[in-house]
Amino acid sequence: MKLWEKNVQVNKDVEAYTVGRDKELDVYLAPYDVLGSMAHITMLESIGLLSHEELPVLLKELKEIYQIAVDGRFVIEEGIEDVHSQVELMLTRKLGDTGKKIHSGRSRNDQVLVDLKLFTRDQIHFLVNSVSSLIDTLLAQSERYKNILMPGYTHLQIAMPSSFGLWFGAYAESLVDDLQMLLAAYKICNRNPLGSAAGYGSSFPLNRQMTTDLLGFDSMDYNVVYAQMGRGKMERSVAFAIASIAGTLSKLAYDACLYNSQNFGFIKLADEYTTGSSIMPHKKNPDVFELTRAKCNKLQALPNDITLIMNNLPSGYFRDLQIIKEQFIPSFEEMNDCLQMVNRMIGEIKVNEQILDDPKYLLIFSVEEVNRLVLEGVPFRDAYKQVGLEIEKGNFTHNKKVHHTHEGSIGNLCNDRIDLLRQQIVEQFDFSKIANAEKALLDSVN
Amino acid sequence: MKLWEKNVQVNKDVEAYTVGRDKELDVYLAPYDVLGSMAHITMLESIGLLSHEELPVLLKELKEIYQIAVDGRFVIEEGIEDVHSQVELMLTRKLGDTGKKIHSGRSRNDQVLVDLKLFTRDQIHFLVNSVSSLIDTLLAQSERYKNILMPGYTHLQIAMPSSFGLWFGAYAESLVDDLQMLLAAYKICNRNPLGSAAGYGSSFPLNRQMTTDLLGFDSMDYNVVYAQMGRGKMERSVAFAIASIAGTLSKLAYDACLYNSQNFGFIKLADEYTTGSSIMPHKKNPDVFELTRAKCNKLQALPNDITLIMNNLPSGYFRDLQIIKEQFIPSFEEMNDCLQMVNRMIGEIKVNEQILDDPKYLLIFSVEEVNRLVLEGVPFRDAYKQVGLEIEKGNFTHNKKVHHTHEGSIGNLCNDRIDLLRQQIVEQFDFSKIANAEKALLDSVN
Amino acid sequence: MKLWEKNVQVNKDVEAYTVGRDKELDVYLAPYDVLGSMAHITMLESIGLLSHEELPVLLKELKEIYQIAVDGRFVIEEGIEDVHSQVELMLTRKLGDTGKKIHSGRSRNDQVLVDLKLFTRDQIHFLVNSVSSLIDTLLAQSERYKNILMPGYTHLQIAMPSSFGLWFGAYAESLVDDLQMLLAAYKICNRNPLGSAAGYGSSFPLNRQMTTDLLGFDSMDYNVVYAQMGRGKMERSVAFAIASIAGTLSKLAYDACLYNSQNFGFIKLADEYTTGSSIMPHKKNPDVFELTRAKCNKLQALPNDITLIMNNLPSGYFRDLQIIKEQFIPSFEEMNDCLQMVNRMIGEIKVNEQILDDPKYLLIFSVEEVNRLVLEGVPFRDAYKQVGLEIEKGNFTHNKKVHHTHEGSIGNLCNDRIDLLRQQIVEQFDFSKIANAEKALLDSVN
Amino acid sequence: MKLWEKNVQVNKDVEAYTVGRDKELDVYLAPYDVLGSMAHITMLESIGLLSHEELPVLLKELKEIYQIAVDGRFVIEEGIEDVHSQVELMLTRKLGDTGKKIHSGRSRNDQVLVDLKLFTRDQIHFLVNSVSSLIDTLLAQSERYKNILMPGYTHLQIAMPSSFGLWFGAYAESLVDDLQMLLAAYKICNRNPLGSAAGYGSSFPLNRQMTTDLLGFDSMDYNVVYAQMGRGKMERSVAFAIASIAGTLSKLAYDACLYNSQNFGFIKLADEYTTGSSIMPHKKNPDVFELTRAKCNKLQALPNDITLIMNNLPSGYFRDLQIIKEQFIPSFEEMNDCLQMVNRMIGEIKVNEQILDDPKYLLIFSVEEVNRLVLEGVPFRDAYKQVGLEIEKGNFTHNKKVHHTHEGSIGNLCNDRIDLLRQQIVEQFDFSKIANAEKALLDSVN
Repeated sequence: MKLWEKNVQVNKDVEAYTVGRDKELDVYLAPYDVLGSMAHITMLESIGLLSHEELPVLLKELKEIYQIAVDGRFVIEEGIEDVHSQVELMLTRKLGDTGKKIHSGRSRNDQVLVDLKLFTRDQIHFLVNSVSSLIDTLLAQSERYKNILMPGYTHLQIAMPSSFGLWFGAYAESLVDDLQMLLAAYKICNRNPLGSAAGYGSSFPLNRQMTTDLLGFDSMDYNVVYAQMGRGKMERSVAFAIASIAGTLSKLAYDACLYNSQNFGFIKLADEYTTGSSIMPHKKNPDVFELTRAKCNKLQALPNDITLIMNNLPSGYFRDLQIIKEQFIPSFEEMNDCLQMVNRMIGEIKVNEQILDDPKYLLIFSVEEVNRLVLEGVPFRDAYKQVGLEIEKGNFTHNKKVHHTHEGSIGNLCNDRIDLLRQQIVEQFDFSKIANAEKALLDSVN
Repeated sequence: MKLWEKNVQVNKDVEAYTVGRDKELDVYLAPYDVLGSMAHITMLESIGLLSHEELPVLLKELKEIYQIAVDGRFVIEEGIEDVHSQVELMLTRKLGDTGKKIHSGRSRNDQVLVDLKLFTRDQIHFLVNSVSSLIDTLLAQSERYKNILMPGYTHLQIAMPSSFGLWFGAYAESLVDDLQMLLAAYKICNRNPLGSAAGYGSSFPLNRQMTTDLLGFDSMDYNVVYAQMGRGKMERSVAFAIASIAGTLSKLAYDACLYNSQNFGFIKLADEYTTGSSIMPHKKNPDVFELTRAKCNKLQALPNDITLIMNNLPSGYFRDLQIIKEQFIPSFEEMNDCLQMVNRMIGEIKVNEQILDDPKYLLIFSVEEVNRLVLEGVPFRDAYKQVGLEIEKGNFTHNKKVHHTHEGSIGNLCNDRIDLLRQQIVEQFDFSKIANAEKALLDSVN
Repeated sequence: MKLWEKNVQVNKDVEAYTVGRDKELDVYLAPYDVLGSMAHITMLESIGLLSHEELPVLLKELKEIYQIAVDGRFVIEEGIEDVHSQVELMLTRKLGDTGKKIHSGRSRNDQVLVDLKLFTRDQIHFLVNSVSSLIDTLLAQSERYKNILMPGYTHLQIAMPSSFGLWFGAYAESLVDDLQMLLAAYKICNRNPLGSAAGYGSSFPLNRQMTTDLLGFDSMDYNVVYAQMGRGKMERSVAFAIASIAGTLSKLAYDACLYNSQNFGFIKLADEYTTGSSIMPHKKNPDVFELTRAKCNKLQALPNDITLIMNNLPSGYFRDLQIIKEQFIPSFEEMNDCLQMVNRMIGEIKVNEQILDDPKYLLIFSVEEVNRLVLEGVPFRDAYKQVGLEIEKGNFTHNKKVHHTHEGSIGNLCNDRIDLLRQQIVEQFDFSKIANAEKALLDSVN
Repeated sequence: MKLWEKNVQVNKDVEAYTVGRDKELDVYLAPYDVLGSMAHITMLESIGLLSHEELPVLLKELKEIYQIAVDGRFVIEEGIEDVHSQVELMLTRKLGDTGKKIHSGRSRNDQVLVDLKLFTRDQIHFLVNSVSSLIDTLLAQSERYKNILMPGYTHLQIAMPSSFGLWFGAYAESLVDDLQMLLAAYKICNRNPLGSAAGYGSSFPLNRQMTTDLLGFDSMDYNVVYAQMGRGKMERSVAFAIASIAGTLSKLAYDACLYNSQNFGFIKLADEYTTGSSIMPHKKNPDVFELTRAKCNKLQALPNDITLIMNNLPSGYFRDLQIIKEQFIPSFEEMNDCLQMVNRMIGEIKVNEQILDDPKYLLIFSVEEVNRLVLEGVPFRDAYKQVGLEIEKGNFTHNKKVHHTHEGSIGNLCNDRIDLLRQQIVEQFDFSKIANAEKALLDSVN
């Protein structure tokens, strides 16, 4: 059964080719498809396109399908093309022709648009939680190890004193900036495309503000041509934000793999997070961080993957956009898996508190010495030369202590201000508005 | 003269290889380098690292160099490596050893970081203005042509009634969403990295909040390791936003090229914006839109270009990051050129007010007819079949009028609400704070 | 059971995270894993690391597992990590400790390398067949429609006479050039990594030339460090070739979607290859070509996806490389599906033999007219102006016939030379050598 | 002066926008443009479109322009659009209307196609030489240091014995595989597009085989529609090959940066190839390798950059393709600079012959010990456990000697076979055929 079915029997292979992975991917959209329909028909009734009697009957049935979907029991049956057709089928089995009425005043185009947006904003909610939780862990580790110095590198050359407090805290702050990008993507996402139909609106007197409010959207995608143009664009905007987070995690994973090498030995991963070798008995490989790096590098390719599919298409719907789902929908789970695994790994990481006992790291204190001389009044250039000479002669010594006091430095990490910045951004997502709207919509069924 | 020069003569070819295009690109950074230095030394004086007497002398000289830079007369001399060295050279020529004192408490690493951020936020300001101006033009054209219908397509198949009002307005709204992404990039950019030195802070008692305020930053990049990690990350965040804008323009240009084809004939470009053919006398080629599309497609590659350079590097500075400038710095001018050229083209475009006289477009009214029947009480499926049958028999007719009333539809474009949304986003940039801070800094020199 | 299992119980979630999609993807590698083992143990026996008695017993069992794998019955059991462990498990169940002996002198690293190369060269074989078959279809259609003119466009402006013969033939020739790229990838692939162990070779006196010959490789990857470095590099080389083919198909699909639009009407797709609209009764949408375009655009992203994962890793094995399989292995099936679907579509496409009856296409003959005047002795510039003037006045006429005779032109398509070039490239793959080697290896079991 | 100039004055800004960087980039194409014209007019005379008298006059003048171009004195004058117009202008200044006759039977479209192909095949020639020279250096270093062991890593964990012989040799062999890809690109490039005119051929009786032979092409791009379709496709094919080479160099540079770190200390770069720090006196930074890595990572983005510009355009010329030159033409010089700089660096690199004195590397011999036990008859699993136990107890010892004998291993590098494979590939380029053809064409002028 296809909504557009005419007389000609569509070739079986063609059907397999066109349906593609929709049956598998549309299951993720099922609860959102139902929510969208509930809002749509509530509005249809308000403008006289559904009767007072039909609405509650349809809503009740939809709420049951919603429950099936959130319970993970929703299945797209053999021969059914997509989630929209499956829901309509379930309705008409129960309610006969009344079930077909939910399709008035919309097209599958705006239906899938609204499904994707409702799905995505929920996924963004999960991401914000996972990112925020990882920030907590990183800040906690930063505080815990704030007094443990480590060598800081530039050009992978031993350079200056750093600390584990700085190292953990840096990634927390990086994630805070990533939340800015995610907030922008969320704002682009949380606008209502419903009512744009096939991208050119409708001659029905739809009340789009009503569905906007019922579904808890910030506003509607006003222009109906733009609403359709948002397909792919919304996904790419979110992909930019995912790529930002993935970039942070990939870098963290790289550091961890490097620091876990015997040539650094800065950190020690718990045994249960390492794997061995089939021919080398002494290995403790950081596979989990390597896979995190690779998964996050794959996620960083997502924006370009989407761009290549949607680019250089004129305005108006094209079936091409369906393929974006194959890469977009699974990316949330992949991102979340990485965030949660890194969260656990970081929480259990052990740092080497004796790194600086290795004499090769003594040179990190050379700048301290130069600066000390400067503070004593020696011109910078002279101090620089004097210390350089001592190092060349092998006479350089230092007490391995630092006194850094400025904001964001070893002795003054400003983790509280990073935390505050995070809170200010997270508040702007206003997830409670969405939760309230969705609850009210479901509760409207008696 | 190199700041780090030691005894060994660096090989000439190596120098050419390492300096690369810095001399050319650093000129863009010159005024910002000076501003950063003015804030830095004002702070240095406050913590006793510069005397009360030295500060005004240095500030006065720097203000003159600033004027040289904004006048476009700043040149990096033969044998001078980069903008930082050139400014120090100009100072020491005038002031002798005092000139060297501006370098205390910072590194070239945080110096170039602050230069790039000051440069970028100014460039974002220009971009916001150009985007906003194009939105104005698009909204004006949308209003002007709001009553001219055109065919709307799905799958490049003639589908439903659209209008030039919708077409122009859609791109205005797309740019508004692009501004969201640009705002996120701006917020990531407008944070002060100064004081992070080589990425590990300093033993000097720097007052980073003071330079943050002097330069009009929203906050500082707190963690000094993160401040360094922001190199490349900030550029990529901005690249995401540029790619968003470029995506909108590329699509608009594609539409324009298609609609300019004799097979569509929807629009007519002014003669001065078309080119001819060396062997075909009748051609009027839309080269300007084609080049816009290609330039914008090139700009859409920018995030991936940057990712490939910065990815899989551990934390800490690497010289690799220098190469990002080659692609990042020119992208603003390229983006602005495209925005301004499109603005002019769109402002002068003529639309074909008689498109719908072509009988092949009559079919766009079939959905209108189906909906009319539905509103008269015919079930949707029956109405759909009835109209389909009329079309097959060649009996379908329609008066070529539509009555679309819902928000965002042909008859109710909601351009005012798109405009309002744009204003709400633009206000959040708060460019006046920056302008005031920079002015105050320059005015502090008597 | 893991080959490297030690005392510590690896955390369940970690195991799920690290195994990832290996169980699903490794099934594709199973028959090749067995072939590799058969060659490896035959060689081990020759250097005394297996006894004369053990070899035939192991080979017999492996051949049975091979049959299971090619029949599609190979399954990686619960708790088993990958294809290598599963095969060893199946052997030891039957043969006890003898089964474990196949692992001497190699590592899972060179084992998966050889699996991937054997798998890939087979997949390349399938691709060459599919591409070649599509070339046949395109050349046949080119010959069939060689006398049907169509408008040729530049800048999407009506430009000059073209023909369906040219259009079909162009894509055939494009695929021939794509085969060049595929041949290079094949040559990079068809080199034996076996014996490189974990990337540093082995102290066993392995005979790598023997396994090279047994498996029908062109040569070995000599340097063992390079053999390991080939992981990812080989996949990317093949991805370049796949992207080339995908680029050709994507462009063909774009043309088909455009020419299927009512605004062109150059071609007509069979009804069973089009879909309808849920609200527009008259639509015949070219979904199959749109999805082909999108799938091929996704495939064009493959090289970059792989690059992002493997780039900026130093030499030596990293677990990151496992993730490449997720995108690489399915790409062959996706590419083949597209090739076969396009082959069917192109074979059944109908062209509009009356296009040029539309008067707007008359202008394509303007260059013909200019050239005719030139051949009569009129200077080119004068002829160009004269024809241009006639067009402006609306006086231009032409008999809609062309006489193009040079190589590759409408009247002289050179399809036979394109065919010959294709043959010369296909011959260089020398797939029969591989087939013979694999057959001999399997037949060595009595 | 524009070839297609009509009555309307093209707007100045539009001209600047459309001409773009053509004046700068077309200079690279100038000598090739002249060669293409020399072949074209020689052919024109053979089919009677030029007189016997005109040909030598034109050839003589063109040869002079050719000399100007190869001497680096060719300039595109103010107001002249591109190289083609400039050459015609120089001819007509000298020869009057005769100069205009070279334009018969071709378009700027096939002119730029042939220019790009002649330019590119020359650039490929330079690349092959540079790559080959680097292979020589790497193989020489491999032989020189073949007895110096170094630790081999997997997962960046100390794993097994490797050697500098293996390390240098691996990159030589990687470049050999890269030459395969370059050969495929060369074969795609070295086909003649001349005669395809604007992509639809010509009614003139052109002799395309003649220009194919005169210019030393392997064959022509037969189908004229395909010849035009090759624009962008040829560039991308070459970009794939450049990305392959760049991938090898980027990885080598990464290794070098890592091994130069004090935490490894495997190699020592000559002082003149390192830079210092403005605040850390002890640093010797490997900037040259870092910049090589970054430049090569930028080059690895090239295929995607080109794809984004050319993708999803239907067949036929579009002005978009001009923008590809901006990224394509400079890439050869960038690639060559990297190859030559790496060649010098590698030639002067010093290796640390005492690395293995550090006790932490003792564990690399554990597999040697396991294998020794296996060769003595101990089952692998038992040997593996026994050695693992010794390591855990701290009792493991080894004489730091290895005896690897198989092909491609430490004791049997097979550098001669890598060299041979290189030669076999290089021979297939057949550059002498091109050189002979170009020489004959220039010598045809008396």
